[in-house]
Amino acid sequence: MAVCPEQEHPTKAFGWAARDSSGVLSPFKFSRRATGKNDVTFEVLYCGICHTDLSMLKNEWGVSMYPLLPGHEIVGLVTEVGSNVEKFKVGDSVGVGYLVGSCQSCDSCSNNAENYCPEMILTGGAKYYDGSTTYGGYSDIMVADEHFVVRIPDNLPLDGAAPLLCAGVTTYSPLRYFGLDKPGMHVGVVGVGGLGHVAVKFAKAMGVKVTVISTSPNKKKEAIENLGADSFLVSRDNGQMQAATGTMDGIIDTVSAAHPLLPLLGLLKTNGKLVLVGVPAKPLELPVFPLISGRNMIH
Amino acid sequence: MAVCPEQEHPTKAFGWAARDSSGVLSPFKFSRRATGKNDVTFEVLYCGICHTDLSMLKNEWGVSMYPLLPGHEIVGLVTEVGSNVEKFKVGDSVGVGYLVGSCQSCDSCSNNAENYCPEMILTGGAKYYDGSTTYGGYSDIMVADEHFVVRIPDNLPLDGAAPLLCAGVTTYSPLRYFGLDKPGMHVGVVGVGGLGHVAVKFAKAMGVKVTVISTSPNKKKEAIENLGADSFLVSRDNGQMQAATGTMDGIIDTVSAAHPLLPLLGLLKTNGKLVLVGVPAKPLELPVFPLISGRNMIH
Repeated sequence: MAVCPEQEHPTKAFGWAARDSSGVLSPFKFSRRATGKNDVTFEVLYCGICHTDLSMLKNEWGVSMYPLLPGHEIVGLVTEVGSNVEKFKVGDSVGVGYLVGSCQSCDSCSNNAENYCPEMILTGGAKYYDGSTTYGGYSDIMVADEHFVVRIPDNLPLDGAAPLLCAGVTTYSPLRYFGLDKPGMHVGVVGVGGLGHVAVKFAKAMGVKVTVISTSPNKKKEAIENLGADSFLVSRDNGQMQAATGTMDGIIDTVSAAHPLLPLLGLLKTNGKLVLVGVPAKPLELPVFPLISGRNMIH
Repeated sequence: MAVCPEQEHPTKAFGWAARDSSGVLSPFKFSRRATGKNDVTFEVLYCGICHTDLSMLKNEWGVSMYPLLPGHEIVGLVTEVGSNVEKFKVGDSVGVGYLVGSCQSCDSCSNNAENYCPEMILTGGAKYYDGSTTYGGYSDIMVADEHFVVRIPDNLPLDGAAPLLCAGVTTYSPLRYFGLDKPGMHVGVVGVGGLGHVAVKFAKAMGVKVTVISTSPNKKKEAIENLGADSFLVSRDNGQMQAATGTMDGIIDTVSAAHPLLPLLGLLKTNGKLVLVGVPAKPLELPVFPLISGRNMIH
C-alpha cells in the first residue's frame, strides 16, 4: 500500500508539485522525516529553477514519476540539527543541491565525486533509503543528511547563492577540470540562460577573456553590460563566426536544445575544448569529416 | 597552361594514380623535382595503404583532384641529399608521412605540431610551394624537404615501419596525449584494421590492458593470438557489452563508418576518454540525455 505523502513522516510540509506532464505546478501537502542523527533541517528561503526541473516536470526524458516536487538549488536557515551533526548549528545559512544521498564507499564517493556514485539519490523524485520519495526545494522545509548540506558564507546573498548549487557547479566544475581557468585564456560561453550567465561571471572572476555566443542579438547588452563579457558573437552571423575562427581555448556550451556543433568547433584553437553541459533530449550531430585533423575535443 | 606531369620536373618518376573516382589505379608517368638544398631524395621501397587513401581515391569527401597519386606511409633508402642537409646521408633508411610542407613559423609549427599548421601541405594531391602538385608514395622515387623526413632505426624492418607513419602516429599520439599510456590502465580499441592493430600493439607495449571491440566475432583469434589483446568484445552482443560497463579508462575508436557511440561511452569509467580517430563521411550521433551526468569525454 502506498502511504499518503501527507502522513508518511511526522513533520508537516507544504510545496508546489507537478501531478502530470502538463508543466503546471499546484499546491501539495506532504511531510518530511524527523531530523535524524546526521540530518540538518532548515527553513527554505530561496530555490532556483533549473532547466532540468522543467524537463523533469514535463517528463521530457520519460523517467518522471508524479507527484513530482522539483527544486534542487535550495537555500535557507537551519532550524534543527541531529545529535551527530557537528558542522552546522541552528541559524546557519545552508544549501542543498541535486544530491541527498550516495553509497559513501565507492571510488567516486571516496574522491568527493558523489555525483558519479551509481547509488546516488537525487533531491527530487527519487527513492530515499527508507523507501520514501524525495521531494525537492519548492517547499517550506527541507531535511537532508549533513554530508549533502553546504554552508553559505555570510557575505553571499542567499538568493544569489541558490543557483550556484546546480548551475554554478555545472559551469565552475568544467572551467576548473579542463583548465579553462587561467588568466589570459579565451573562453566562449554558448547561451546566456541560467547556466550561461553564471559561467560568464565565474570565467571573468578567473581572469579569463569571455565571449558570449548566442542566437539572439538582443542578448548582447545583457552579456556585456550586466555580466561583464568581453565580446559577443551572434551564432547565426557567419561573418562574425568566421572572424573568430581558432581563437578560443575552450567553450562552455549550455544550450539544452538540438544545435549544430560544427560552427562552435571552428572557434577553437588547436586542442581546444568544447564542453557540453546542456542536456538536449535528442542526440546532437557530431561532425567528423570537416575536422579531418581531429584537432578538437568535445567533453 | 597546365604543364604535363611528365615534363614538369627534371627527374622522371613512375607511380600508380587514380584518374577518376572509380577507385581504380593505373600506371602514371610523372616527374619529381631535382634535389633542392634542403631536400632528401629516396628510392621508395614500401608504402602503406591508409583508409584515407581509399576515401580520397573515391572522392568520398568531395575534395579530390585527379590524377591523384596516393600513399603517405612511405619508406625507402636515400639516394641523394641537398647541400644543406645534415641529418641524412645516402643509404639511410628514411620515411615520409602525410606532410611535406608547412609554414614553419606559426604556433603549431613552433610546437612540433606542423599537422595543425593552416598552411600545411599534404603529401599527395596538394599544391607545393612551386605550384606543382604533390604526388604520394605509390611511386618509385620520392623527394621531400628534410624537415618532413624521418629516420627509420636500423632495427625496424622497413615494411613494418611504413604504417607507423600515419596509422602509427594516429594511434600512438592519442594514447600519449590523453594519458592512456600508464601500465595497469584498461583501454578499448574499436576496430582491428590498419589503425586498430597498431593501437593494440602500442598499448600493449605501454603495459596497458587492451580489449578489442569489434562487430566481427571472427576477429577474436587475430586480436588475442596475433596482436596480444587481453580480451575481446563483440559490440553487437549486449550481454558482453553490459558486463564491461564502466571498466575502461579510454577507448581508441578507429572505425571509419557511421556507428553508434552510446554503447562505447557506457564502457568508460568516470571521466573516461573516447577518442575518435576514424573519419566517417557522415556526422555521428552524439547522444546526450542518457549520459545525464555528463561524465564522459569524447575527443
